[in-house]
Amino acid sequence: MQDYQHILNEIYTTLKKVKTKGEVARYIPELAKMNPDHLGIHLRLITGESFSTGDTNIPFSIQSISKVFSLAKAFQLMGNKLWKRIGVEPSGNPFNHMSLLEQENGIPRNPLINSGAIVIADILLSHLKNPKDDFINFVRELTHDDTIDFNETIALSEKRTGYNNYAAAYLLKSFGNLENDVEDVLDFYFHQCSIMMNCAQLTNAFVVFANRGRCIHNKKHLSLHKVKRINAIMLTCGFYDEAGEFAFEVGLPGKSGVGGGIVALLPHYYVISTWSPPLNKKGNSYLGMKALELFTEKTELTIF
Amino acid sequence: MQDYQHILNEIYTTLKKVKTKGEVARYIPELAKMNPDHLGIHLRLITGESFSTGDTNIPFSIQSISKVFSLAKAFQLMGNKLWKRIGVEPSGNPFNHMSLLEQENGIPRNPLINSGAIVIADILLSHLKNPKDDFINFVRELTHDDTIDFNETIALSEKRTGYNNYAAAYLLKSFGNLENDVEDVLDFYFHQCSIMMNCAQLTNAFVVFANRGRCIHNKKHLSLHKVKRINAIMLTCGFYDEAGEFAFEVGLPGKSGVGGGIVALLPHYYVISTWSPPLNKKGNSYLGMKALELFTEKTELTIF
Amino acid sequence: MQDYQHILNEIYTTLKKVKTKGEVARYIPELAKMNPDHLGIHLRLITGESFSTGDTNIPFSIQSISKVFSLAKAFQLMGNKLWKRIGVEPSGNPFNHMSLLEQENGIPRNPLINSGAIVIADILLSHLKNPKDDFINFVRELTHDDTIDFNETIALSEKRTGYNNYAAAYLLKSFGNLENDVEDVLDFYFHQCSIMMNCAQLTNAFVVFANRGRCIHNKKHLSLHKVKRINAIMLTCGFYDEAGEFAFEVGLPGKSGVGGGIVALLPHYYVISTWSPPLNKKGNSYLGMKALELFTEKTELTIF
Amino acid sequence: MQDYQHILNEIYTTLKKVKTKGEVARYIPELAKMNPDHLGIHLRLITGESFSTGDTNIPFSIQSISKVFSLAKAFQLMGNKLWKRIGVEPSGNPFNHMSLLEQENGIPRNPLINSGAIVIADILLSHLKNPKDDFINFVRELTHDDTIDFNETIALSEKRTGYNNYAAAYLLKSFGNLENDVEDVLDFYFHQCSIMMNCAQLTNAFVVFANRGRCIHNKKHLSLHKVKRINAIMLTCGFYDEAGEFAFEVGLPGKSGVGGGIVALLPHYYVISTWSPPLNKKGNSYLGMKALELFTEKTELTIF
Repeated sequence: MQDYQHILNEIYTTLKKVKTKGEVARYIPELAKMNPDHLGIHLRLITGESFSTGDTNIPFSIQSISKVFSLAKAFQLMGNKLWKRIGVEPSGNPFNHMSLLEQENGIPRNPLINSGAIVIADILLSHLKNPKDDFINFVRELTHDDTIDFNETIALSEKRTGYNNYAAAYLLKSFGNLENDVEDVLDFYFHQCSIMMNCAQLTNAFVVFANRGRCIHNKKHLSLHKVKRINAIMLTCGFYDEAGEFAFEVGLPGKSGVGGGIVALLPHYYVISTWSPPLNKKGNSYLGMKALELFTEKTELTIF
Repeated sequence: MQDYQHILNEIYTTLKKVKTKGEVARYIPELAKMNPDHLGIHLRLITGESFSTGDTNIPFSIQSISKVFSLAKAFQLMGNKLWKRIGVEPSGNPFNHMSLLEQENGIPRNPLINSGAIVIADILLSHLKNPKDDFINFVRELTHDDTIDFNETIALSEKRTGYNNYAAAYLLKSFGNLENDVEDVLDFYFHQCSIMMNCAQLTNAFVVFANRGRCIHNKKHLSLHKVKRINAIMLTCGFYDEAGEFAFEVGLPGKSGVGGGIVALLPHYYVISTWSPPLNKKGNSYLGMKALELFTEKTELTIF
Repeated sequence: MQDYQHILNEIYTTLKKVKTKGEVARYIPELAKMNPDHLGIHLRLITGESFSTGDTNIPFSIQSISKVFSLAKAFQLMGNKLWKRIGVEPSGNPFNHMSLLEQENGIPRNPLINSGAIVIADILLSHLKNPKDDFINFVRELTHDDTIDFNETIALSEKRTGYNNYAAAYLLKSFGNLENDVEDVLDFYFHQCSIMMNCAQLTNAFVVFANRGRCIHNKKHLSLHKVKRINAIMLTCGFYDEAGEFAFEVGLPGKSGVGGGIVALLPHYYVISTWSPPLNKKGNSYLGMKALELFTEKTELTIF
Repeated sequence: MQDYQHILNEIYTTLKKVKTKGEVARYIPELAKMNPDHLGIHLRLITGESFSTGDTNIPFSIQSISKVFSLAKAFQLMGNKLWKRIGVEPSGNPFNHMSLLEQENGIPRNPLINSGAIVIADILLSHLKNPKDDFINFVRELTHDDTIDFNETIALSEKRTGYNNYAAAYLLKSFGNLENDVEDVLDFYFHQCSIMMNCAQLTNAFVVFANRGRCIHNKKHLSLHKVKRINAIMLTCGFYDEAGEFAFEVGLPGKSGVGGGIVALLPHYYVISTWSPPLNKKGNSYLGMKALELFTEKTELTIF
């Protein structure tokens, strides 16, 4: 067996020396306040062992990583009916998200771009009894940690400035692909994005996708059929316009968020999370991407 | 001189026989209630004589025709500073209005498409003391008719269902091209679109654009420089994705609205308005377009 | 009557002082050799009087201005059947010419963009007995000048480097909108673009569009119906992505070419040609545009 | 161990009953002649065992599957320099391939779309001594079968009708992203696509991508680093606009061709090829896709 702790330490040391590492997300005022120097990496094998280096116990806003949780919950609830309102293809072009929605009659390309996640939020709003409570409980259950919660300040901050999400939501509404009021859907969506988790918690939560639908306490939450499909979507759509690049350089299904977090996994083997707030031009954590490239280069453990 | 009354009568008789004439706009519930059989044509020469046939005294919702009034008012107030926030080029492609906004960083193509008119509404909101009052008074002054008013029912109807306009407004906001709150801008915009006028009133109001900036009572409202530019924009951008077709088949600057109205003019000669609610696929009054084609074919009086 | 010679002289003097005036077209090697300092303006009233200043007797490559001649000839031959293979709407977006062709199934937006003019060339190739001879004779007839000819060096130069036109032609062919071989169509097209004319000749040739279809020797070449439509297309589509701007600032139907020439006209009044090789970013002669803005500002003679 | 022969037989029996199965590609006349009823599936484990059912010994035109061979060869020759002229992101939108090329300055999205494969062909033409011979020998070497060859009739057939590829190639040339003449590049490209192989040969050839760069005779052709990246590109870009769907439903890196062939593989485990000429609307073999869905459903052996 490889010496994972040593590998994580090596990566940490290498990355700590990197000077140009992008910029912290500025468009959500609360996120702009993050210390750019945080760096954490947490690994958990499917066998249960964990390895950790750096700031893996400091919670951060998981942002778009939450889209995997909401997809999982909606898929659990609705099964394949989900795909009437949303696709599974990569979005391709950074310059025409609105245009794609227009051309494709309000059916978002996939559940991991904003418009797709807004449709998922609408579905959860329609199908969960107490949407916010039920959703946070689902995340807590996956993680086995009841301290996980929304960050109201961040949710509010995004609500005040998230004009682009309002534009997408109203466009979806104009095509009849939102059942609920835009304000209600976005309130749920901004809360979902505001969830605070640390690297260790994220790693634990994603074990369900690496372990055939079973969480860290071995409870079955999702069928293998669904887990495989969620992983496929993460691989082809999980990194905005850099999904191909991530598959190419890292070779794992995963998801990033503008809070600087990334989670990735090798089915049947491991889950790994990284956190470093500065983002590259595509909106993914600069050092997080590097960390995962180094990890799969050193271990040769990828899906390819 | 040509016998204009005879020409209008002939056109009216011809058009009354047309059976397939498109469909009344359905997306605004209040507009869907219009009687599709209304047909009116009103002509006014620059010399003051008027000719009329059909339903020219029944007020209807002028909708997008109001964009010419708001453009005129904003141009009057701001001069060429206007063109920092808005272009003067035709929009071209019906399938990518949102995409154009995205690609062109939130600068709408021209003031006669919805996104452009929303920017103009934002400008008026910032520069008029009592925006709605001042604006309706401007229209009344051009028309010399104090009975002209907003239709609150239509404004409210559009507010409840105008998701596409909300999407455009939030996209503009996300690019920093709206100063005021989206709700306030759209409240003004929906009111402006709801103005009720009949063919005779519309014709009178547009005399200002045919008569070098002077209204029917000969008061100077706009410089010749500005009037020429407003006419140019009407010609290249006044009929959505059918602007080229209108220039080609009719050959006059003009503007249509989904309420079924069209106004067009030959500078220094005449203004003509038509009203027939059913629309063609491009959203312009089917019989109105035909009426204007017949009129310019018979009189040979066009700008070309 | 206005003192036109004085006005032309004033404009010439003003423009000669302009320093930053864009760059000569470089993509056709032969054109890159032009002296950037040439400047000529030639005006002809419908009554026959002519006024001239600067280099109005030096022939230059008319390039895209030839598209108006080929459109006129094809319209003369085919009538409205033409519009089955080509539209009359402005193209709008500089970034997606190929995409528009793709989305609109190989039907070019209008006859004055390259893809449209290539379809027109295909039509002429199918319908003229001796295509190149018949076409040059048509231009000579309009101009009453038998010295006008193709420039084989320029035609060849463009043939060797006109990859973009090859791409457009093959895309048209893939949609079944070219009857002839791509090589034959482009050979005709590159020859048509290579025609050499000076400002005086261009002005004379375009009298047919200002004088209800009659050329300078009063022969009827085109019906008024057709002339009006050609003028409408020039106005809405004659200046690439700057058509709205030209209508806005100048207010005349016209056509530009990358050789630095521009022709414009006021129906029933006059034709005016300018030549200055350096182009603005949109591909239109920088000083030519300025000259026409100044001319219509000073004379107030525009279609608006 | 699973009974693979039994699984293949079951799939074969199931698929033979399917009636509506799409249409054979018609745009290449030679391909249109294929018998739509052919169906073959061939599986090879990394351990060397093979399993076969149906028409697995009849050669067919591999078409786009050849793009994986040309990518492998070019990557072998050039290493990461390749990525200066070509991307690794999915193309996303079926409606704007030309537009993407335009917007992205002639850099194709990835090596498995036509424009990307044309750039690869250009690179091979520049770097191979005897391009066609060297390339076919590379494929023969991977397969250990010297009978594999080009089909000149198919290559010629495509050359005569492949206008869309000419359009793409000239567009690339206009952006300076082709070094060689368009005719030469496309001659190579059409030959590469015309290669005839059967399911068994394709399976054998692709072992190199499943076996860490070693072919069936254990010779090392590519580094693990390169093999992983080629697999990643196959997964994200191998099925035109259905790449996400294939990842979602099948979960393997793979590549399809309009000749009706598909090859897919699970690294370290197996390679599987299918052949059935009728295509679905996205251009992928209808029954081939079904066969692979069934295979991974029954075996649960996917990368996810």
